[in-house]
Amino acid sequence: MKSNPNPNPFDEALTLEPLAEGRYQGHTHPAFANMVGPYGGVSAAQVLQAVLLHPQRLGDPVSLTVNFCAALADGPFQVRAKPVRTNRSTQHWTVSVCQGDDPVLTATALTALRRDTWSAEEHTAPAVPAPQAVPQRSGAMRVEWLQRYEMRLLDQALPSVWDGSDQGHSRTRLWVRDQPPRPLDFASLTALADVFTPRIWHRRARLVPLGTVSLTVYYHASAAQLAATGEGYLLGQAQGQGFGRGYFDQSAQLWNEGGTLLATTHQVVYFKE
Amino acid sequence: MKSNPNPNPFDEALTLEPLAEGRYQGHTHPAFANMVGPYGGVSAAQVLQAVLLHPQRLGDPVSLTVNFCAALADGPFQVRAKPVRTNRSTQHWTVSVCQGDDPVLTATALTALRRDTWSAEEHTAPAVPAPQAVPQRSGAMRVEWLQRYEMRLLDQALPSVWDGSDQGHSRTRLWVRDQPPRPLDFASLTALADVFTPRIWHRRARLVPLGTVSLTVYYHASAAQLAATGEGYLLGQAQGQGFGRGYFDQSAQLWNEGGTLLATTHQVVYFKE
Repeated sequence: MKSNPNPNPFDEALTLEPLAEGRYQGHTHPAFANMVGPYGGVSAAQVLQAVLLHPQRLGDPVSLTVNFCAALADGPFQVRAKPVRTNRSTQHWTVSVCQGDDPVLTATALTALRRDTWSAEEHTAPAVPAPQAVPQRSGAMRVEWLQRYEMRLLDQALPSVWDGSDQGHSRTRLWVRDQPPRPLDFASLTALADVFTPRIWHRRARLVPLGTVSLTVYYHASAAQLAATGEGYLLGQAQGQGFGRGYFDQSAQLWNEGGTLLATTHQVVYFKE
Repeated sequence: MKSNPNPNPFDEALTLEPLAEGRYQGHTHPAFANMVGPYGGVSAAQVLQAVLLHPQRLGDPVSLTVNFCAALADGPFQVRAKPVRTNRSTQHWTVSVCQGDDPVLTATALTALRRDTWSAEEHTAPAVPAPQAVPQRSGAMRVEWLQRYEMRLLDQALPSVWDGSDQGHSRTRLWVRDQPPRPLDFASLTALADVFTPRIWHRRARLVPLGTVSLTVYYHASAAQLAATGEGYLLGQAQGQGFGRGYFDQSAQLWNEGGTLLATTHQVVYFKE
């Protein structure tokens, strides 16, 4: 087996050292640093990873909600994943991430044995140019984690002038994949669910301080569909719904190049006036 | 003070008897019975109520996620609400509902002191006829809890023929309020977030067995906006996103008659082929 000459640090970031059943020690990874603390998508992926590694796990992820209670400090953390209810085909999880005695993340998840049924995609992929026809985002990035994703923007990255003028809407679309490319799995799909720029920056043309407080991911993809997606691009679309009184929410969808809906995701974000 | 001659049983359903700080005894209410166990919207409202009653609570609800681990049996239950992290203006909660030793619901919530900021509604209310111009849904209801809501449907209630033919989309709209009317508050708004018929019945024209497994509510309304909404109608709109492998998700919005976005909500639902 030859070693990968250009590994993606995501695998290092996902490394959780077992301390006891369902308890792991993890560490923030400098390759995914955000302005303060780590990129939230990687924290969400680490939470999911604690569930995926659990010896009692039943099935694949159906839903995940991660609450960001406080900024993670750069350094080690402990994750605890607990299967609180296991039914015949479903399993409910609570997860917490602590630094010292302080909880920094709380989460709940559902995994399930899924089988083929009638299916339909109602939120279908929009018609957009192929990824190869869209220039790759380049230049200096504000934060380190942005370097970990190859992005081909189908809309303007952010307003070109920060004049606080209402842009009318916040919907944007992009092609995105891990950089360097890495075969898609549930953990990396989870991280990608948080890849969208906060909608208030698009809508308001003002770079207000902010932070996601709660993120939910619904998994539509099977492990086989993720494997088939491999290192291909995902098409992402995000849009805000309501902004006010210090919080806004945004919803997003992720499809693969074949147009299969892999995940839908929602989050609520604190912002400072 | 004269007693209300026609009280809404929702207030009885919300009654939680304190056992210790953050621990309460509640009871399912026959007025909100569903096909098996209680209406999930009322269970979600009871979860939120445990947070709202807590003496250490800081601020108003921003988000709530409730996971339905198992069907609640008709009868008593215990709720435990715990403020796991309190910051200067935000507070993160975990909540569990048990019957005997078994968890039947898990939940997380965020409350916060909110202050006026820049605001915008991006998901605006669709133009529809006024509630008074839309006939009230009447006739025999399949389940008891449907009698607790006055519904004025802006789209067909459900397919008229259950022939399993793909209806192309699942988006429907309705005017809805408590029946008998009751001033809107965070608990009743939470219950209303689950009022939408499961989208698969609309999309697929087949009455498959199902159950919500996880429900998230984002609160956009202030207490003052809820009070101003009072006993007025809410405009609700719901639509599915992806259906397959035994699960689908749906998203919904709730506005008041003045067009203010009060809440957005998302859920993932199990269905049986």
